[in-house]
Amino acid sequence: MKNNNKKVYLDYGATTPIDKDVVEKMIPFLGENFGNPSSLHSFGQDAVVAVDEARKKVADFLGSMESEVFFTGSATEANNIAILGSIKQKEGHIITTAIEHKAVLETVKQSGMENSIIYPDKNGIVSVDNIMKEVREDTVLISVMYANNEVGTVQPIKEISEAVKEVNKNRKNKIVFHTDAVQAVNYLPCGVNELNVDFLTFSGHKICGPKGVGVLYAKEGVNLSPLIFGGDQEKGVRPGTENVFAIVGIGEAVELISKNNPEKTRKLRDKIINFALENIPKSIINGDLEKRLPNNVNISFKGTEGESLMIALDREGIAVSTGSACASKSLQPSHVLLAMGLSHEQAHGSLRMTLGRFTTEEDVDYLLEKLPTVVEKIRKISPVR
Amino acid sequence: MKNNNKKVYLDYGATTPIDKDVVEKMIPFLGENFGNPSSLHSFGQDAVVAVDEARKKVADFLGSMESEVFFTGSATEANNIAILGSIKQKEGHIITTAIEHKAVLETVKQSGMENSIIYPDKNGIVSVDNIMKEVREDTVLISVMYANNEVGTVQPIKEISEAVKEVNKNRKNKIVFHTDAVQAVNYLPCGVNELNVDFLTFSGHKICGPKGVGVLYAKEGVNLSPLIFGGDQEKGVRPGTENVFAIVGIGEAVELISKNNPEKTRKLRDKIINFALENIPKSIINGDLEKRLPNNVNISFKGTEGESLMIALDREGIAVSTGSACASKSLQPSHVLLAMGLSHEQAHGSLRMTLGRFTTEEDVDYLLEKLPTVVEKIRKISPVR
Repeated sequence: MKNNNKKVYLDYGATTPIDKDVVEKMIPFLGENFGNPSSLHSFGQDAVVAVDEARKKVADFLGSMESEVFFTGSATEANNIAILGSIKQKEGHIITTAIEHKAVLETVKQSGMENSIIYPDKNGIVSVDNIMKEVREDTVLISVMYANNEVGTVQPIKEISEAVKEVNKNRKNKIVFHTDAVQAVNYLPCGVNELNVDFLTFSGHKICGPKGVGVLYAKEGVNLSPLIFGGDQEKGVRPGTENVFAIVGIGEAVELISKNNPEKTRKLRDKIINFALENIPKSIINGDLEKRLPNNVNISFKGTEGESLMIALDREGIAVSTGSACASKSLQPSHVLLAMGLSHEQAHGSLRMTLGRFTTEEDVDYLLEKLPTVVEKIRKISPVR
Repeated sequence: MKNNNKKVYLDYGATTPIDKDVVEKMIPFLGENFGNPSSLHSFGQDAVVAVDEARKKVADFLGSMESEVFFTGSATEANNIAILGSIKQKEGHIITTAIEHKAVLETVKQSGMENSIIYPDKNGIVSVDNIMKEVREDTVLISVMYANNEVGTVQPIKEISEAVKEVNKNRKNKIVFHTDAVQAVNYLPCGVNELNVDFLTFSGHKICGPKGVGVLYAKEGVNLSPLIFGGDQEKGVRPGTENVFAIVGIGEAVELISKNNPEKTRKLRDKIINFALENIPKSIINGDLEKRLPNNVNISFKGTEGESLMIALDREGIAVSTGSACASKSLQPSHVLLAMGLSHEQAHGSLRMTLGRFTTEEDVDYLLEKLPTVVEKIRKISPVR
C-alpha cells in the first residue's frame, strides 16, 4: 500500500513512542524483578522500592507529596476516579466544558448529577467567567482540561482555580477542581501548588512512557472513594496488583519530560502552519494560535474529508489523525470543533498533526512535500465542496 | 541480611516470573510497534492486529468466541466488572463464598445488594447444595472461585453451573454464574462451554505473563455495563487506550500455559507435604489433599507465627507467603482459614508455598534443608504455644 519505507509519525496526541531510556529502566521488571509489592519477602520488597521511587519522581514533578500520587491503569481511569470517586454518595451539580475528552465529558454525564457544559469561544478557549457564572449552591466539582487534545488550546487553569478558591471561602460545601492534564504535561508547568488544583490526571503513553498506567494527583484531605474493590493497593483507591513495570516506566517518563524541546517543537509546528496557509488554498487553522501547545497543528482543508486525507497520507507513510484517536471509530465530526462553532463540513475536513520528542525537521519536510498533492487529490475526488 | 545468594521463589500464588518467550513477544511493543489501536493509520492498525491475535489466543484457550473476551487492567477489575457491571440498575441478591479473594468478596459486599456468604467444609470445599439452598426469587448472581488462592482447593464449578442451569429453566430472571479462575487457569480445564459459566476471570501475572492486564470472559447475551467511562475500547465495557504490550503478553502467556507440567509440580508439592508431615512435629496440612491445585502447599506449624516463619525463610533466600499477598499488610489471620474453622492460632501459624513453571527439585530440596531449623528456631522464640 505504501510508496516507500519512509515512516513519519505525527500523531503524538494519540500515543507516543516510548523513550529508549524509559524502556531500559523497565526491562529488569520483565525479568528478575518480578515481585508483587504486596509480598513481604525480598522479591516483593524490591518491587515496593521501585514503586516508591516512581511515586517520588511523579511527586517531584508535580511538587506534591508522595502520598498525594495514585497510580491507575490509565488516564481514563484516573479521570473517572477523580470525578466519580470524589462525588460518591453526594447529590449535586458538576461544571465541565464541551471540549473535554470523553473520559471526562462522558463520565460527568454518567455521574447521575446535574451538569452545566461550558462552550469555548471560536478559538477553543473557555472563559473563567462563563464557568463561574454556572456555580450553584450545590456545585460539587468543576473539571476543565489543561490543554485540549484536538486543537491544543491551553485553558486558564490557574485563573479558574483562583476563582474557585475565592468562591470556596464563603461556602461550607467546598467545590473541588479537577484538570485533565494528559496533553499538557509534556509542555506546560504542572506544579499543583501553583495551579492550585485538587485533582490532576495524566497517562504514561502520552509522555514517551508505557501504556496501561495513569497518574491521579489528589490533594491531601480531598474525599476519594474507589470505583472497584478488592485490595489495599494505592491506599484502597485503586485496588489490584500494582503494574510495577509500567509504574517504573511512568516515573522515568515523567523525569524525562525535561528532554522535550518546546522551542524546537514550536518551530516545526509553525513551519507546518505557515506552509499550509501560504501554499494550500482554503486552509484554516483551528484553535488559538497563541494559547496553544507547541506540538499541535489542526487544519481544516475546505472541500476535503479528514479521513480521506489521513488515509492518503498513511499511504505515503505519514501518520496523522482527524481528531481524537479515541473517537476515531465513530463517524461523527469532532465534538470539539463543533463546540467551537465550526460547521459540520469544516469539522469533517480537519486534520490533526501532533509532534513530539522524536520529530525531526526531515519528518516535517517530508510531510510538507506530500501534503499539497494529497490535499489536491482528495479535493478532486471529494463530494464535499 | 541473607546467608548466601541463593534465591528460591515459592510464591507463584502471589505473582509469577514472566516466561522469556512471553517477554520476547512483548518487546517489539516497547519499540517500533507503539501505535494506539484507535488510530486508523498503519501504526494504529498494526496494534489492532496484535490485540486481535491476543484475543484469538485467549478465545482458543477458553473455547469461546473472540467477541466474548474482554481485556481489563487486572483480574480485580475483571471481577468487579463481572459483578458490578452485570447487576447494574438491578435490585436483588448475590450468593458467594467465604473463601473468595477480596476482589470478589469485598465487591459483593459493596454492591449494595443483599448477599449470602457460603462457608466451606473444614477442607475448604464449598458444597453445591449449600449454595443452591440460598437461591431466592431475586437472586441475580452466584460467584464461586474455581480454585482457592490460599489452600488451593478446587471448587465444584461444573456441578454448580449445572444446578444453576436447572434452576434457570423455571425462572424469568436468570441467575448469572461467575467464576474467578485466577489460580485455576494454570492447571485446570477452562473450556467455558464445559464449565458452563457466564463469566470467567483471570490475570496475566499469575500465568507467567505480565502484570497490569486481566481477562474477562463474558458469555454472549449476558448484560454488562462499564464501571468507568470515556471510550469505545473493548466495546465500551472497559474504556481507555488498550495496554497493547500487556495484552500481547497475556495472549502469549495463555498459549504457553501448556508448558506447565502439572505432574512434575504435583510431585514436588507432595515432596514438601510428606517431608513436613514426617519430619516437622505438629505440622497440619490445610485444605483438601485430593481436590487441590498441584502447586499449592499450605501448612500450619503449631506454636509459630506464619509471618515470623516467612521472614526467617526470606533471610535464607526463600520466598513464601502466609496467605494471600493482597491481604499481607493486614495483621488479620487469613479469612479463608478461619472460614474453614481453623483457630486463630492455627491460621496465624500457616505458611503458603506455591510452586510453578520454573520450580526445580533443587529449589524444593533447598527449602526442605532449611525448613525444619527455621520452624524450630521460630518455635523457640514464639510467644504462641
